[in-house]
Formats: sequence, structure tokens, C-alpha cells
Amino acid sequence: MTSYNHIDEVIVGKLKAIVGEKFVVTDPDRMEGYAHDGVTGPENIKMPEVVVKPGSVEEVSAIVKLANAALLPVVPRGGGTGLAGGAVAFDGGIVLSTERLNRIVEIDKENMVLVTEPGVIVDDVQKVARDAGCFYAGDPSSSDSSFIGGNIATNSGGMNAVKYGTTRQQVLGLEIVTPEGEIVTLGGKLKKNSTGYCLSQLIAGSEGTLGIITKAYLKLMPKAQNVIDLLAVFPDARSAIGIVSKILHSGITPIGVEFMDNSGIRCVAQFLKQSVPYEEVGCYIIVSLEGDNGDVLDEQSMLINDLCMENGALEVLAPDSEKIWRIRKSFTEASRARSMVYTSEDMVVPPARIADVVEKMGALSEKYGIAIHCAGHAGDGNVHADMLKDKMSDEEWAEKLPAIRNEIYAMVYAIGGKLSGEHGIGHKRLDLFRSFTDPVEYKITMAIKKALDPNNIMNPGKIIQLS
Amino acid sequence: MTSYNHIDEVIVGKLKAIVGEKFVVTDPDRMEGYAHDGVTGPENIKMPEVVVKPGSVEEVSAIVKLANAALLPVVPRGGGTGLAGGAVAFDGGIVLSTERLNRIVEIDKENMVLVTEPGVIVDDVQKVARDAGCFYAGDPSSSDSSFIGGNIATNSGGMNAVKYGTTRQQVLGLEIVTPEGEIVTLGGKLKKNSTGYCLSQLIAGSEGTLGIITKAYLKLMPKAQNVIDLLAVFPDARSAIGIVSKILHSGITPIGVEFMDNSGIRCVAQFLKQSVPYEEVGCYIIVSLEGDNGDVLDEQSMLINDLCMENGALEVLAPDSEKIWRIRKSFTEASRARSMVYTSEDMVVPPARIADVVEKMGALSEKYGIAIHCAGHAGDGNVHADMLKDKMSDEEWAEKLPAIRNEIYAMVYAIGGKLSGEHGIGHKRLDLFRSFTDPVEYKITMAIKKALDPNNIMNPGKIIQLS
Repeated sequence: MTSYNHIDEVIVGKLKAIVGEKFVVTDPDRMEGYAHDGVTGPENIKMPEVVVKPGSVEEVSAIVKLANAALLPVVPRGGGTGLAGGAVAFDGGIVLSTERLNRIVEIDKENMVLVTEPGVIVDDVQKVARDAGCFYAGDPSSSDSSFIGGNIATNSGGMNAVKYGTTRQQVLGLEIVTPEGEIVTLGGKLKKNSTGYCLSQLIAGSEGTLGIITKAYLKLMPKAQNVIDLLAVFPDARSAIGIVSKILHSGITPIGVEFMDNSGIRCVAQFLKQSVPYEEVGCYIIVSLEGDNGDVLDEQSMLINDLCMENGALEVLAPDSEKIWRIRKSFTEASRARSMVYTSEDMVVPPARIADVVEKMGALSEKYGIAIHCAGHAGDGNVHADMLKDKMSDEEWAEKLPAIRNEIYAMVYAIGGKLSGEHGIGHKRLDLFRSFTDPVEYKITMAIKKALDPNNIMNPGKIIQLS
Repeated sequence: MTSYNHIDEVIVGKLKAIVGEKFVVTDPDRMEGYAHDGVTGPENIKMPEVVVKPGSVEEVSAIVKLANAALLPVVPRGGGTGLAGGAVAFDGGIVLSTERLNRIVEIDKENMVLVTEPGVIVDDVQKVARDAGCFYAGDPSSSDSSFIGGNIATNSGGMNAVKYGTTRQQVLGLEIVTPEGEIVTLGGKLKKNSTGYCLSQLIAGSEGTLGIITKAYLKLMPKAQNVIDLLAVFPDARSAIGIVSKILHSGITPIGVEFMDNSGIRCVAQFLKQSVPYEEVGCYIIVSLEGDNGDVLDEQSMLINDLCMENGALEVLAPDSEKIWRIRKSFTEASRARSMVYTSEDMVVPPARIADVVEKMGALSEKYGIAIHCAGHAGDGNVHADMLKDKMSDEEWAEKLPAIRNEIYAMVYAIGGKLSGEHGIGHKRLDLFRSFTDPVEYKITMAIKKALDPNNIMNPGKIIQLS
């Protein structure tokens, strides 16, 4: 591991000279919110040495040049909603918050591109696009608080990925500050590009380890005239998930197909303090459809209704969309509210195999006596399994958690799956990534990191640990 | 520049031991076809020292290990249809043809993935997908002869990119042989993935400089019930191209929107020896639509018809699809048939700016007295300008070509465009890439290449020239 220097008064002075005094924070009370992200548990918390809030790309560049020369880690941070510990400064150094880089730079309707700084909340990106008569397709559960820069850095997914892909598919170009503090724009307002290596896609999903995103060129789509959500309730997980491939092969391309198991639904109902449909017995499949022609959409809804009813649904409802999405998007918050210590797994598998994963999680829940709630982006093969510590002792939790993870990921990799569909590796999955990744892929990853960040100062100890 | 060794009898013997005697070619007559790709002109031709045709990934690995140890360039080669000199062994060494790696490995309908070796012709990939009731979206003009591996290596585009993106958007995973001869699978049958760096997208479009693609996991889509092509004929290029953004903002998402200027149309008519609509005066816009509902498609066709007629179209035809695509796809072949020495430029710009590029090409054609035909994927902002040497002297051609290129690319970069939308950099655009690329991006490109190919043996002198 790299041996870093620590923040001292000289460095703090230099940082203040770059960004202005009031944007350098060293007071522990004011830094507490920057000591963790969405991952709970004491081992996932680390108080920063300093938090810096640059207001321009030039300031970001100056901070990184200072850090690179002084051998100080730089940890880029967005909304702090990450689920892999990616924005926490475990090795000390500078937490670089993008919260002041919060301007939408341009809506270019002619080219269907939105240009934004990284510190804009995703809901606001969506809203600005909508107000311009367009559609931005990224939509993670955390859209009300996560930053667009963080979405790109972790390649977050969400509710629209069946039709529109994950965040990386929305990225046409990025301006970044490199680990050596240089500013460069990769890609741009271009719908296609074969001009050299596709570096913007290497940066997207690299979790701040190869540079800091300071501007993004995002794809806009035409806004569909109509959107319909359908809630199909099934008596068990297998029949619920079984419908997914039937829907995907019906010739209809939904925006998304979501899944929630019954224990997850109950937990959310308790959290929201409201009754939800079929709370006692149901598993949910939520299908979102969109289109310009209302008749076609009605036909598609009927077809999906029939498919679901023929395959064992208890009922297919046209739910209050706002309510059903609040239920779905509260899944992880509800887990955390029930058990402050919990973990959200994020495996992704070939879509036809998700029922196997959910069933395996059920078996592991029984075997280890741990509450596990499953939900996920069923149409993408991405399953979230929230495992709750509840009242289990620290020792038992510390023993059982790795055992469960090893069992489930052995299975996931055996069927061609991976550790993370949308949360990333961060700090949390460092060991699992090393264990389960093909050694050649691991070696390539190390080689790229070393080549682009020779001093290993850019979000070190995330994804990989350089030795 | 790296100083390489040369092929001698010992190396030839070792290659024969790896792939079998009959798959190692050293006879100049049999190697002539491997001495160039689609780029003409004597400076773009180089006879290989040896051509090797491995039959398995293990053989590819053994060849690369041998080359890496013996400091011999390895030039991966697909169908030889490239338009950037990317598959020619200018530095000597081994031309590694993928022509025997020509099996479709699997059609996984449940997961909507097609797994293929790199040496399959793209038309055959399309056909196998179609026969399974699915749709593979990649469709370059060269689909009748280019290999799928080459399509991925150059991130080729084509006729469907407005709706489906370019080849990289079809790639879910790749098996490659690294420059050190190791075999690794990156990605897989996964619709989303945030597990470490997105290396498959780094390999796609890297033109064989970072490894050899030995297997690809490609996305399949549901096949639409109906496809309609419309041919709108306009009296001039600006009014033709002006319609593109109107179509893209009409709420309809076409599969593609193609453009051909009148000089290109005339050249094709001559090449195909057949009359084509409005040959004397027309510029073409071809709009392809697809959908399951015939009524909706008819409505969309009417809307596009009305849009075109209101904006100065001479006529909107429902053409014989096979004929119109033969005309469009023959654009470059017709240029080459008229003037054996020619060059196909491939600039990409923000889509709203393509009329400016086409007009600038017209002005340059007059200024320099060189015939220039323009066509392109107007909906993607990708313009092909074929410049024909015709009977110009070698000296004049050698003088005028760089001058025109410098003028046009200065303009293209000033409006946020790039050198290549789908052909790649290869050998042909090496100098232009160095001149026009941001020095920081160039440095990152160099660093990645050096990190992954320390001996610089994998398709050296393509995209970048290591010093």
C-alpha cells in the first residue's frame, strides 16, 4: 500500500488559497456527513482529514495537482448516497466534494444533448430535460439525492435500464481532471465516435479512481406521450420472476421490469407506515410501458395483463404510479431503517437466471438465520439482496456475512454473473472483487490504474488495492 | 519507433507447429490479398512477411506469446474491408487472419445474446439472428464481407445507428487474447455491469492495438414486425440535410436517416449501370422506420412525407428497399471503381452541424478542383466525403489532399467534431489523430497502450505511434 502524507496546516492553507477559506472544512462536526456514504457499520465510517468544495474545474485541477505533488489521496464525492463506500476517505487525504459544481451548463435541443456539472441532483437533471420537452433516461432509486457525477462514476442503473441501458449509455462525453491534475474533454456532443480509444466509457464506472468528472455530455431522448405502470402481484417469487422473460419475449420493450419479494414489501409497508397491495402474500412485478399511441399502449397493457394472469398472477393492477414508485424506491431505505447495520448486495446475472439467485438467497436466509429481502431490476438480471443484522451479535454477523457472500457469489459467478450490476465495487467489495475476478482482468485493471495514476492518489483503495 | 525482429525460418517453423503447416502462408501470390485493406494507393499496401490462420483461441494465444517473446508485430485481420489501413502489417511481422474462427457459438434466445467467433461475416450474424426470430442491429455498408470481429475492433456504425447505436452498443462481452498472449473474458451475457472498469468497451474500437478479439457476446433485440424505407428526394444538399433534425424532433425514432448528395448518386448509377430516381438533380434522404403496429407505421410515414414535402422535397417515394440499399451501400465501392486512388473521409460532428460540413466540402471541391462525393449517416452526424484522384497527377494529389484535410478537420474540430465516426484511425489517420487530438487525451492513450502492450507488438503503428 502506498504510504501517504497527511493534511497539515500548510496544506490547509494552500487549499484555502485555491478555493477560498469558507470552502475548506476541517471542523469535525461539519465533516461528519462526509465520513460515510450509504454503507452502514462502523468499519465503513472514516472521518475526513479535510473536506474541500471547489467551485470550478480550474480549482479541481489545482487541488489535484497539489495532492499529486504532496502525495495525498483525493476522494471525489457526490451526493454521498453510494452503496459501496466509494466516497469515503479510508486512507486519509482530501475529500473533494462536487456539491458546488451544480450548474446545468446547457440544454442543446437541436443535438439532443444536456451538458451538466457533476454536482446536480439527478431528479433535477430529469426535470430540466422534461421542461425542455425531452427525456433523460437515467433513474436510480436514489434520484432524489444522488448527484449525476456519482451516477456516472458508478455507472448506476435504475428503473429504465431495460429500454435505455444504465447511466454509461447516456454518456456521450466527459470533461475530467486527470490524476495528475490536467483537464481534458473526452467525447462530446457526438452520437458516434471511432476516434481513438473510448476513454469516456473507461472513466464511466471507474468510481473516481482514474479522474474526477467535472462536466458530462448526456444523451436526451424524445419524451414519450404516455407512460403506464402496471403492478402484477404473484403468490411467490418464482412465478413472479418467471413472467419476466415472457414479457421480454412478447415483442414489447418495456422501459423497465422491477421485482420485489414479499419480505421486502412488508418491510417497506412498515417503513412508510401505510398499507400496500397484497402486503401479506404478494410478490410484485412492476412493468413500465411508454409510447406515443394510446391505443397501442392499451393493447400492450392488455397483453401483459393476460400474460401475467395466465402465469399465476393474483391480480394485475393499474396502480397510482407515484405510490408504487415510492414503494419500490424505498426498498433499501426501509432495510436500513429496520436494521441500521445491513448490507445491500447487487449481483447481476444473465436475466434468465435471476429466479435461481432469488431462490438461493431464500435458502441462505434459512440456513444462516438472517433476514434477507430481495428486490431488483428483474428485466436486467440485477438482484438486490438486503441482508439485515437486526439483533444479531456483532460476532455472529461478522462470521455469517462473509460465509453467505462466498456461497452466493460462487453461484453467481458459476452462472456467468458478476458482483455488481449498478452499485460498484468501491471499498466494500474490494476483497470479493479480488477473489472472484479473473486474474488477467485484475492485472489489466491494475495496469491501467498504475498507468493513469502513477502516484496512486486518485480515490485509492477503491475497486483495487495497489500493493 | 520500436525496432522489431523479422520473420525467419525458425519462426515460420514454430508457427507451423502451432496452427499446422497449411495455415501458415509465406507464398507472395497467396499473401497478396492480405497486403491491403479498403484503402487504396501504393503507400497503403505492404506485403506481409507471413500470414497465419489460427483455428482456436489457444492457437491465437500461442502465436501472440511467441510474437511477444520474439519481438514481432502481430496484426489482427478480419474481412480486410477496413477503411483506415488498420489490418496491414506496415512494420512487418505476423498477419493473424481470423478467417478460420468463423463459428457462431450460441444463440441464447432466453437471454437475447448471440455468441460468435470473430471471423463470421456480418450478414451471416444478421441472418442467424433473424432465423431465430431476433434482430442483430449492427449493419455497416460492408456487411456482406466484413467480419464481426473487425466491426467491433473499429466500432463500425452503419444504417441502424440512430435507433440502435454503433457496434460497441451491441457488445455485452468479449473474449480476447491480450498482447502478452493471455486469454480473458470481459463482460458476458449481462445487460448491465458495474464490476470494475468497463474493459470490453475499451477493447471495442481499439483497432486490435490492445488485444485480439476471439469471441463476442452480442445483444439481440426483438425483431420488429414491419420495416418501411422512405426515399425523400431534395433539390439540394442543404434542404435535404435540413430535414434530418425535423425528423428527429418529430417524436418518431427512425432506425436510421441516410444522406447521399447528387454527385455520389450519379457515380453510383454509373457503377451499377442502372438508372436511379432523380439521377440528374436529386439529393437523397432515406428514412427507415420499424414497428409492430402497421397503422402506427403508416401514420409515421405520412408524417415524414408531409414534413419532407413542406420542406422542399421534390418527391417522397416508397422505394424498392433492396434497390435503395444497394444504391446507398455502393457509395464507396462506386468511388473506388471510378478512381482507384481515392480517400473516404469519415468525420463526425454534432448532428445539427452536418449541413455545414457538406457545404464546406462543396466549397473545397471547387477550390481545389477535386471531385468530392458526400454521403453519410445524417441522423448520427457522420459524413463520408469520398475524394477522387481521377486523372490528377500524383504530385498534385499528394499536395492537395493534406491541404483539404487540414482545412476540413480544422472546421470539424472547431464545431466539436472528430476525425472518425466509424472507420477508425488505423494507419491512415495517424498523423491527423496526433495533430487534432487534445494532448492530454493523446497522453492517456499512449499510457494505456504502453501499460497493456509493454513490448508494443499488438498492431503497432495504428491509432498512435509509440516513440
